[in-house]
Amino acid sequence: MPHPGHLPRRVWAALLSQLLRPPSAVCIRAVGCYSQVAEAVLTSQLKPHQKKPNFIIKVPKGTRDLSPQQMVVREKILAKIVSCFKRHGAKGLDTPAIELKEMLTEKYEDNIGLMYDLKDQGGELLSLRYDLTVPFARYLAMNKLKKMKRYQVGKVWRRESPTIVQGRYREFCQCDFDIAGQFDPMIPDAECLKIMCEILSGLQLGDFLIKINDRRIVDGMFAVCGVPESKFRTTCASMDKLDKMSWEDVRHEMVTKKGLAPEVADQIGDYVQCHGGISLVEQMFQDPRLSQNKLAMEGLEDLKLLFEYLSLFGIAEKISFDLSLARGLDYYTGVIYEAVLLQDPAQAGEEPLNVGSVAAGGRYDGLVAQFDPKGHKVPCVGLSIGVERIFYIVEQKMKTLGEKLRTTETEVFVATPQKDFLRERLKIIAELWDAGIKAEMLYKNNPKLLAQLHFCENTGIPLMVIIGEQEQNEGVIKLRSVASREEVIIKRENLVAEVQKRLSES
Amino acid sequence: MPHPGHLPRRVWAALLSQLLRPPSAVCIRAVGCYSQVAEAVLTSQLKPHQKKPNFIIKVPKGTRDLSPQQMVVREKILAKIVSCFKRHGAKGLDTPAIELKEMLTEKYEDNIGLMYDLKDQGGELLSLRYDLTVPFARYLAMNKLKKMKRYQVGKVWRRESPTIVQGRYREFCQCDFDIAGQFDPMIPDAECLKIMCEILSGLQLGDFLIKINDRRIVDGMFAVCGVPESKFRTTCASMDKLDKMSWEDVRHEMVTKKGLAPEVADQIGDYVQCHGGISLVEQMFQDPRLSQNKLAMEGLEDLKLLFEYLSLFGIAEKISFDLSLARGLDYYTGVIYEAVLLQDPAQAGEEPLNVGSVAAGGRYDGLVAQFDPKGHKVPCVGLSIGVERIFYIVEQKMKTLGEKLRTTETEVFVATPQKDFLRERLKIIAELWDAGIKAEMLYKNNPKLLAQLHFCENTGIPLMVIIGEQEQNEGVIKLRSVASREEVIIKRENLVAEVQKRLSES
Repeated sequence: MPHPGHLPRRVWAALLSQLLRPPSAVCIRAVGCYSQVAEAVLTSQLKPHQKKPNFIIKVPKGTRDLSPQQMVVREKILAKIVSCFKRHGAKGLDTPAIELKEMLTEKYEDNIGLMYDLKDQGGELLSLRYDLTVPFARYLAMNKLKKMKRYQVGKVWRRESPTIVQGRYREFCQCDFDIAGQFDPMIPDAECLKIMCEILSGLQLGDFLIKINDRRIVDGMFAVCGVPESKFRTTCASMDKLDKMSWEDVRHEMVTKKGLAPEVADQIGDYVQCHGGISLVEQMFQDPRLSQNKLAMEGLEDLKLLFEYLSLFGIAEKISFDLSLARGLDYYTGVIYEAVLLQDPAQAGEEPLNVGSVAAGGRYDGLVAQFDPKGHKVPCVGLSIGVERIFYIVEQKMKTLGEKLRTTETEVFVATPQKDFLRERLKIIAELWDAGIKAEMLYKNNPKLLAQLHFCENTGIPLMVIIGEQEQNEGVIKLRSVASREEVIIKRENLVAEVQKRLSES
Repeated sequence: MPHPGHLPRRVWAALLSQLLRPPSAVCIRAVGCYSQVAEAVLTSQLKPHQKKPNFIIKVPKGTRDLSPQQMVVREKILAKIVSCFKRHGAKGLDTPAIELKEMLTEKYEDNIGLMYDLKDQGGELLSLRYDLTVPFARYLAMNKLKKMKRYQVGKVWRRESPTIVQGRYREFCQCDFDIAGQFDPMIPDAECLKIMCEILSGLQLGDFLIKINDRRIVDGMFAVCGVPESKFRTTCASMDKLDKMSWEDVRHEMVTKKGLAPEVADQIGDYVQCHGGISLVEQMFQDPRLSQNKLAMEGLEDLKLLFEYLSLFGIAEKISFDLSLARGLDYYTGVIYEAVLLQDPAQAGEEPLNVGSVAAGGRYDGLVAQFDPKGHKVPCVGLSIGVERIFYIVEQKMKTLGEKLRTTETEVFVATPQKDFLRERLKIIAELWDAGIKAEMLYKNNPKLLAQLHFCENTGIPLMVIIGEQEQNEGVIKLRSVASREEVIIKRENLVAEVQKRLSES
């Protein structure tokens, strides 16, 4: 039963939403709009009359289902990540998938257009969360918390044009770890980088590198290169594209789109070539122009201290000070970092895994204050693991290695070679379930023994419990190892104990 | 920087969405609409000029954050539920939180208005999922799967007026288990009820009862009472309110709102009084009117068989055949069930836990066919656990018992009694982390020893590693048990081994 006045509203809304767009956009969108209207008319005309759906069954663009096979991989990856977060003393937190639109606006600068808004159905204006960082800051301010070390795993939504082959989606899962609170410099920042190293090594994704920079160095660089302060953030956004675009293209965008003078862009170009270790930090201290900028020097001082802590953690060689690193998000105020995988020759042979950054983060000391009515600051630093991309890589590796995973954990299968043993099987399996044993049976009154054997082999169930006429008469039951095909007869009353013994042995 | 043309679009959209409503609705909504516009104007005027937020920090109506304390409880509950699903051989599945609106419409009958729609930002028309059952059916049809036993844990969204005190929310978590496939009657149905019993017993929520009925019996009852077939579903929706409303109120709704003849309503009233065990099933076979209805007899036949399997599972006494049970959702076609907690006197003393049903489900043999272009049927039966309500009950119990939970799992704290030992602490803690030991330290250059001791006591960390000048000179390190305050000196190089030994012992 379609919603009263549903069709006209929807069609009009579609049309009107076009008229309300900035003029420039109207023409391009119009086509899509009319086809939408046509489709709406069509479906609503057909629906009441026919049962069959007249649409293609699909999930929304940029989203996907995770099959049981994929879920097994996903669960393994998430478990490793979360256990690392807990190893570092993080507490769990959950926030709603929807936030008041007011809470999210002005936190993402250029990216605001990528936010999913909910339809105004009367009441509050809502959006789907864009990341887990802003909700965390909102939570801290809302509960007046001055310090917290938390992790959060959850989905976020971004209306980007998805290039799914690279493991980019419009709905995707993030794993965040953040340390909020006023502490001595660079200690929490160093731990965040340590965590990224532990996770990336632990997941065995091959060699990786973590690029680091500091927003104050970026801004200082912009200043000494002659970028007007009003254009810092938007220039930063262009620079952030350096991992996807060549410097020439970024330079072109800076000059034509962002209106920087060509010579200004070229000076930036000189800096963004630079990357290296602690030595580059030292070098930049001597840089005639950068050394004149107070902000930049603060950033360099912190990086120097950070590198000292990183070597104590034994991960300094994994970190590269990279002046081309900008990070798109607007809220960073200090150290920023981004982990990239270095394709080892082994993989290079296969289809290239161009997955970009697999983890990133930084310091955002001003975000909580944006939520706090009194503007109280709570300094924060954190990281986010890009699970989808890691998931894509692991999935690819398993495909090439031809690994097969069990999608269930069933330990015992209850079978019978004879007819009319359903009730006995039900009694037996209930016993096993009640003892906490993972057990399955076929939902048939009289299944064929072969079908039951095949089920165990196909799903990898190690142990079979077989009950037949003879066993029942003698008060015994048969245990069969699916792999070795060995069978033993045990007393019926010892069933649970015997099964548990065998499972603990294997 | 607000989105170009952002304000006018939003304001206009707000106004226009009102004009597009069915006339009847316009007046009532108009007020809310103008205040919304005013607010939009206000905020957008203030935003650019002042940093401080001019809004109250809150989460959307009917949603909530889960604090670390709440997360610990939540995780424990979910772990128990999922382990039960796995014990019964279920595979994991994940589907997007957003679905094409087309996929969800016509699946929820009266409830369609409770769906969260996304704003049309160009492209597909989307909605937040309303449950996990319809997406599962969509997944089966989309992948042409004829059988699957899956579980899914995830959030769903419903725009109901939330009565949060009872643990009802607009965003809430569901745990679903479903068996899809053509099997012999009532075997999977019986397992679903067994699972509900295992979970509710396992969570120790006190005594419970599972009401069961069958949609065919409900419809048969309607038919013999003289309800016109066109009014079956809507009458069913009224009947579903019997757990919240008295029969008198439900009867009144049936007569006035749904337009049933009073005598028809009264005949239904006679039936809905009836509840009991297998004996009631037998009794209904003899019912002069019901026994004339083919559908009802089919339903009774199945219930008879079901009860036989339930007694083999040893749970028959937990199940009550209840003719007042209707289940709101439209897609059920056979057995339906709903678990309710029976308040034991112990709790009755405290504030009443009026939480309604904590688990429910049923058979829906037609849903997958609604998605399949060829209309192929895949019979399904399943259940959904209402985690929020269970969570609410467990939380209440813990409050009354004054239980305190650790929100972190940290095993070791790295401390120092002296100044200038930061670098040594960093080296030690990295060693522990690299050995997989859960360790924390204070992010200060020179923390006070007392502060470090208090941190351990407050957060329940059992073991302290203490390094000072003397220890360093002697190449040793101090291990302190926080509880017993015992201290031992060990060789520095044995640190990890000693810590692991102690942790495994405790």
